[in-house]
Amino acid sequence: MMGDSLLVDLTVLFIGAKLGAALFARLGQPEVIGELLAGVILGPHVIGAVGELEETLHVFQELGAVILLFVVGLDTPLSDLKAVGGRSLAVGISGVAVPFALGAGLMLLLGRSGTQSVFIGTAMVATSVGITARVLADLGEIRSPQARIILGAAVIDDILGLLVLAVVAASVAGSVSAGSIIVLAILAITFVALVGGLGPKLIDRLTPYLDRLGNQGVLIVSLALCLGLASLAEALRLAAIIGAFLAGMALAETRDRYQLEEHLAPVYSFLVPFFFAITGAVLDPSVLADPEIALLATVVTVVAVAGKLIGCGVPVLSMGRRSAQIVGVGMVPRGEVGILVATVGLAQGIIGNELYAVVVTMSIATTIVVPPVLARLYEGRARHLDRPRGRDIEGI
Amino acid sequence: MMGDSLLVDLTVLFIGAKLGAALFARLGQPEVIGELLAGVILGPHVIGAVGELEETLHVFQELGAVILLFVVGLDTPLSDLKAVGGRSLAVGISGVAVPFALGAGLMLLLGRSGTQSVFIGTAMVATSVGITARVLADLGEIRSPQARIILGAAVIDDILGLLVLAVVAASVAGSVSAGSIIVLAILAITFVALVGGLGPKLIDRLTPYLDRLGNQGVLIVSLALCLGLASLAEALRLAAIIGAFLAGMALAETRDRYQLEEHLAPVYSFLVPFFFAITGAVLDPSVLADPEIALLATVVTVVAVAGKLIGCGVPVLSMGRRSAQIVGVGMVPRGEVGILVATVGLAQGIIGNELYAVVVTMSIATTIVVPPVLARLYEGRARHLDRPRGRDIEGI
Repeated sequence: MMGDSLLVDLTVLFIGAKLGAALFARLGQPEVIGELLAGVILGPHVIGAVGELEETLHVFQELGAVILLFVVGLDTPLSDLKAVGGRSLAVGISGVAVPFALGAGLMLLLGRSGTQSVFIGTAMVATSVGITARVLADLGEIRSPQARIILGAAVIDDILGLLVLAVVAASVAGSVSAGSIIVLAILAITFVALVGGLGPKLIDRLTPYLDRLGNQGVLIVSLALCLGLASLAEALRLAAIIGAFLAGMALAETRDRYQLEEHLAPVYSFLVPFFFAITGAVLDPSVLADPEIALLATVVTVVAVAGKLIGCGVPVLSMGRRSAQIVGVGMVPRGEVGILVATVGLAQGIIGNELYAVVVTMSIATTIVVPPVLARLYEGRARHLDRPRGRDIEGI
Repeated sequence: MMGDSLLVDLTVLFIGAKLGAALFARLGQPEVIGELLAGVILGPHVIGAVGELEETLHVFQELGAVILLFVVGLDTPLSDLKAVGGRSLAVGISGVAVPFALGAGLMLLLGRSGTQSVFIGTAMVATSVGITARVLADLGEIRSPQARIILGAAVIDDILGLLVLAVVAASVAGSVSAGSIIVLAILAITFVALVGGLGPKLIDRLTPYLDRLGNQGVLIVSLALCLGLASLAEALRLAAIIGAFLAGMALAETRDRYQLEEHLAPVYSFLVPFFFAITGAVLDPSVLADPEIALLATVVTVVAVAGKLIGCGVPVLSMGRRSAQIVGVGMVPRGEVGILVATVGLAQGIIGNELYAVVVTMSIATTIVVPPVLARLYEGRARHLDRPRGRDIEGI
């Protein structure tokens, strides 16, 4: 069965990640950062409570990522996308194009290879909207126009970001001739369009059959669909997580009917921490002690922030400066999506330990910085607008 | 990240196991048998849809077993054990001793080594009461005196069986001097007694803190406890599943308070099929084509049935012949527990492929045979006793 240490490794990572999450939750910080830092500390590069990262641990890392992206997909109904209208579309597209161009351009300027530059650009693209959504919900602003624009644009970011990742990952995995890149891009787009476009309709047609299975039965079918599309994506040389995301998206419209998220929560709670903890354990923080790498991480982080502030803020300037700031800041966190891209890049040998550390640092920094800034922006706005409302409530 | 084929292997095994379970459920047979046979068919020895069984797949097998035994432990509250009284105790102890003696004696007679003989005896001990409980529930007889004796005795069987397994596994893993076996036996008994005896009390004391965590928080703590005690058991050279079982038993009294079983169901549903499917995939059915092995499997199965019929039936003969038959037959299934013992034995090199196939065959055969026989026994009884009751209900 299992090697002596492996069950112990999994146990140490699970308990460490959960303690880290609890600590960060108490500090008012995102739990994923706590799970990630627990992995960094427990990993072989720091205290070494978890030994060398065997192949097997990486399977748990990937399975955690698959479940994570499946749930992200579940939160991405296509109908929401249609409903958000032009502003979100503009913010989303511009919020992909500007950071990608800035990130890739910066790396090219610094003399990195074309592939690496495109990859860093890709890591800059996706928004981890979970953190922002959580902050907005805590502030009671989740139904504000700015929040709706952010959530809609983040969906577009996720889809475009994963599409870019699919093409980049596929072109690296295969031969790198221009012709084959085009073929793979078409393959990736077709896969995303087919599953993303037809999936929800197909699931809708199957509703009478699914109803008969009951909630537990639908959960099993959903997990089978998630694993099946993840495997299919891998077979097509796309990343497995893209298949998982599309499986989630296909089920997003029927999510509530079968309480899919509630039933998935325990699986998520058990497996996803392995993704963050093992991702953290892979990180060698001593790399950042090199002044050159530390400087690069800082510059990349600044460019990542600027890319979203400009790319997402400018299209909504007509709504006023503060709204533009809120939307821009709300789109800054890269969180788990940036880390996912880094993990794929490291696994495929596109980036080394140093750029991996740079991307993970950027993902953590952009995520940690947002909650307090966003809260302050709303606080400022509240001083202008919300005092009368506050008084009304007191008067009741 | 994951090797190309590994995610595909997991997907094939998951979907195959679930289809097998659905098919067997429709046939009125235990779902675990369907999952197991799906693994046999998909495995490298038959159609080879799953390639060579890499180390990583065995991790999923062990994790599935850990979750399985954790849930079995959750269903084993010590208070039930205290409540069932002398009859269950007699049935349980005699139901361990007789099959163990018959199984080990048979193997010694056939010229097998002492270790192998003790191991086959151990595989004969534990009752997989899940199947019986399901049949009794379907018959509406789960609250009958016979059912209560069976459930109580099965708890005793599980504890004694795992204790025997712990001692056997530990003595094989370590050196095999008589002195060290005694030391390890004391260690195993102390571990079981400490965790099993003090665990529930400790959990009870922690209730105010657990209440504050909420159901999801308690689920995480429970999974941490399960992994932690499984790791500890492994570190003590006992089997990991014993730690998982004891963790479940420690939580059994507070199970309902936090809806632990409902929240664990999705994790169980996702991970436990890997245990059965991979266990099936390890089995080489062609081994059974050898007439000598097939004969051995038949004899072992007959002895396994006889051991429980005699060991569990005789102590309740005073309740009448039919009751003795019901209790004896109800205790016959070995199911997942027998298979678990076989898996441990194969992993530790105590038994080879042939004895593994024999034990798995015995486990499947004893499990498949019980539901129809038990139903017929109750049908016979119903003709004598239940007709008036049936008429009463019609008369309402």
